Formats: sequence, C-alpha cells, structure tokens
Amino acid sequence: MYDVLIVGGGPAGCSAALTLRMRGKSVLMAYSDRGALEKAALVENYPGMPHISGRDMIDAIRAQARDLGVEIKESLVQRVLPMGDMFSAMLGNELAQARAVILATGIPRIALLPGEEKLVGMGVSYCATCDGMFYKGGNIAVIGAWNEAAEEANFLATLAHVTYYTEKPHETGTLKPEIDRSPLKPLGLTAEGGRILIETEAGSDAYDGVFILRPAMALSQLMPELETDEKGKIRTWDQYRTSLNNVMIAGDLQGPPYQIAKAVGDGNIAALQLIRQLDE
Amino acid sequence: MYDVLIVGGGPAGCSAALTLRMRGKSVLMAYSDRGALEKAALVENYPGMPHISGRDMIDAIRAQARDLGVEIKESLVQRVLPMGDMFSAMLGNELAQARAVILATGIPRIALLPGEEKLVGMGVSYCATCDGMFYKGGNIAVIGAWNEAAEEANFLATLAHVTYYTEKPHETGTLKPEIDRSPLKPLGLTAEGGRILIETEAGSDAYDGVFILRPAMALSQLMPELETDEKGKIRTWDQYRTSLNNVMIAGDLQGPPYQIAKAVGDGNIAALQLIRQLDE
Repeated sequence: MYDVLIVGGGPAGCSAALTLRMRGKSVLMAYSDRGALEKAALVENYPGMPHISGRDMIDAIRAQARDLGVEIKESLVQRVLPMGDMFSAMLGNELAQARAVILATGIPRIALLPGEEKLVGMGVSYCATCDGMFYKGGNIAVIGAWNEAAEEANFLATLAHVTYYTEKPHETGTLKPEIDRSPLKPLGLTAEGGRILIETEAGSDAYDGVFILRPAMALSQLMPELETDEKGKIRTWDQYRTSLNNVMIAGDLQGPPYQIAKAVGDGNIAALQLIRQLDE
Repeated sequence: MYDVLIVGGGPAGCSAALTLRMRGKSVLMAYSDRGALEKAALVENYPGMPHISGRDMIDAIRAQARDLGVEIKESLVQRVLPMGDMFSAMLGNELAQARAVILATGIPRIALLPGEEKLVGMGVSYCATCDGMFYKGGNIAVIGAWNEAAEEANFLATLAHVTYYTEKPHETGTLKPEIDRSPLKPLGLTAEGGRILIETEAGSDAYDGVFILRPAMALSQLMPELETDEKGKIRTWDQYRTSLNNVMIAGDLQGPPYQIAKAVGDGNIAALQLIRQLDE
C-alpha cells in the first residue's frame, strides 16, 4: 500500500513525486507512453537545465526521483478504482494500492472507437498479458497504436491467429510473418453472436476477441468516477482537486500552457495540497 | 527601452526571463538582495537539479538566463513608475525603461520605520550615490540593514560626518574609523526645523539627512500605484495580473507555497500571459 500513486512519468508527475518523498510519503509512479517532453528535440527555457533534449531531461529527472526513493514502473495503468478510503490500480497485470492518486498523464489524446467503451471485458481487451489466454486457438484482432503493440501482437500470435490493424501510424516491422495485416482503418466495433465485429470502409470482420493496444488509457476508462465537464475535461476545484477526495490532477492534463516549468510547479503544489489532506 | 523589466533575481524571475527570451522579448532583470533560495543549504525536490545548494542553483539559473540574452543588473530597484504605456525604473543611480514589469521580489519583508514614508525625499533617502552630495559637510545618519550599507556609509563619510545605526544585525567591521556608531535601535523618524530626528529608546538625535540602506524596497515604495488589500498584499486577478496593465507578480510574492518548483511555474505562466498582452 503506497501513500500516493502517480499516473504519468513526466515533469508534473516527477515534481509531485520528489516533493512527496521529501515529506516522507511512499510513492509509486507508473507511466507507459512517450510523453510530450520526450519528443522535444531541445528545451531552453526550463530553469537549471539549459540546452537539453527532452529525452535527457526526463531521464535525469526520473533518476533523481528514483534516487529519492520513488518506485517507478514502466507499465500501462489501465484502471484506478476508488475503494472507500483507498484506491486499487491495475498496472498491466499487477495490482497496486494507494491512499491517494495524482493524475499527471499529459494532454488527453485517446479517442475511443465508436462502440468500444461498452464492449470492454466482453470481447474487447486492453491487455494482452491479462486476457490473451482466453482466446487460445481462436481468431483475434489487434488494433495497434504504438510500437509496443507490435510486440504484444507477437505474444498473442503464440496463442491464436492474429490480424493486425493500425489505428495510428507506428513501427510494425517487427511483426511476426504469421500475423495477417489489414490495411484497413478500424472505424468502430460492434458485437454479434458472441463475436466482435471490426467495421472498416470495406465492411466488417468478425473476431473472437479484439485487443486494442494504445500507449495510454482514455481518462473516461482510467477513472470514470471523476466528474467531467460537457467537453470531457476533468472538473477541478482550486486548480488541482477533483470531484474525488485525494485525487488530484497536475500538468498538461489541467490545460495550457503546456510548459515544463508550469508542469513542475503544478506537481509541486498538487503534492503539497495532497500532503496536507493525507496528514489531516 | 526593454520589453520587460523583472524586479527580482530568484527562480520566479529567472523562469519568466527565460520564457520571455525564448519568445524574443528583451529583458532587464534587476535584483539586489540575497533571496530565500540563496540561503538554502540543500535543495532536493527541484526536478532536474538534485542535491544542490541554493547558491549553486541560482548561479546556474542566472548563467542560463544570461546566456539566453537576459540583461542582469545587481542593483537595488528603488522605484518603478508607471508612465502611460511604459514604465520608468530607478536602479540605483540609473534610469531604465520598459513596456512591462514582472515583480518577483520574494516574500515582502521590509517593514518601514514609523514616520519614514512621508519623509522620503525630504531628508530621508535610500540612495547614497544619488543624494549624498546634497549633504556635503553636514551631519548625517545611516540606518543600515545589510552588509553593503557599511560600504555606502564609507562613501558618505567622504562627504559628511556620519553616524551609523544598525536596523538589522549585519557585518559592520569594514566601517571607517571616523564613522560614529550608535548602539541604539532606530524606532521612528520625525522632522523638526528642517532636520530629521531619529527616535530611539534614549531620546532623539537630529541630522541634516538620514540614509536608510536596506537590501530591498518595501513594495509600497517600489510601486505605490499597485492596488493592495487591507493587509498590504498586492491584489491579483487570474493569479498573476495586478491592478496595473502589464504589471504581473510571480513567485513567493504571491503567497505560499514558498517552493522553487512553484516559483518557476509562476514565472513561466506570468511571462506567457504577459507575452500575449504585449503582442495584442
């Protein structure tokens, strides 16, 4: 049981983690996708780290967090479930528990496929390791949106026949030859006779199971209990507090400006507010 | 004429300066006192600069600002005067002009002596270089509050007879022998017959002029035009904007938490808001 689970491994999450550790809180930080900072070729205006690539910057900051005792897992957080005065989280195939949560996932940019949401757990899965075995010997589809999806597809191909769809352009050169590739873009999902249909421009194809492998979860799936506004943005009070007790947000997820310095400030303030709440 | 004058050389001011430079704005940053950060023996929770002294951190950040073209002056800003759509500032003995101002002076901690405010310019001065000559051959007092006050007093002693009072403990070992030292703490100032009386527990002493030499100016003197609340705190809108157009505040001056990460975030956001205003 950790004091705080931080979802996201960018500047906001790391800043929060450092401050929490300075105040003696145990911290689990989990992230899976390459955030905005990691893609920055050169950052000049973050005080104290002149002329540095985003990649080098985030590596240094994560190392600092690790040195201060932050536990860091490179793992997709699929679900954070409020359970009374604590939270349970699914990190890939593992379960973790924490008293509080800071969401610092960056700009939300996961758009669900039409029909996807209501089929999760009913033939649609986000975790090859967790659910692959259910489809052993069957006919499954992978809808991939990042490089690691290809790797997961290769694992699934050891269990079942796999057809690979590409949701967003990414590296698929490592896919095993026995995997079929569909050139068609998935447009939506439906269920029919216990199977899942992937709809494309050319019609639809039926599978026993469909794995959607993206670098992050949509917030509406990660934590559907959070109150959002009509545009799907998480509602906040005093900038950092959400509708759920001991759940804060920080960084780009809050809105612009999308700047490292601002994110780092956010993480610090959110952590301090949370510490006050936890110590009350 | 600069685009922006930043008063204060700490993390908030430097962060604002870096972002302003990245957007092509010319920046003059002026500071005089040792801020809160410089006194920190060790900072652990600022992302990217692990295990560093406050002194080393601020030196590195200022060097980064200088490299990006920020003009930095170690000079007491005595007054920032709004003049239509620009500002004039007195930096020690120099005049500087800017289109906008960011105040990032740190926690305000200058308490004026009773009677001081209304005697400024009428026998009470904050600048030995500026006003020393007016008292040539006379009898003056220096009320010192930092090490550099002793140096200024030595300069004044070349012009007039000087009595040195200590407002706050500091290094006075370098004072010239011809300077008289008063062991008494100044409690207030009054005017009588064209002279200034320094009131102490033991009564009062009269001088032709009184120089009060502190490491920073009270905000009420630096920019009395700013709207404040009943406690003297600068009023803000959207956190960073003050009652004066193109004057923003950032960092500890805004209130707690007094944290580097938060200050750096502030400076970044204040700068971006200001850039938008200046470009409109």
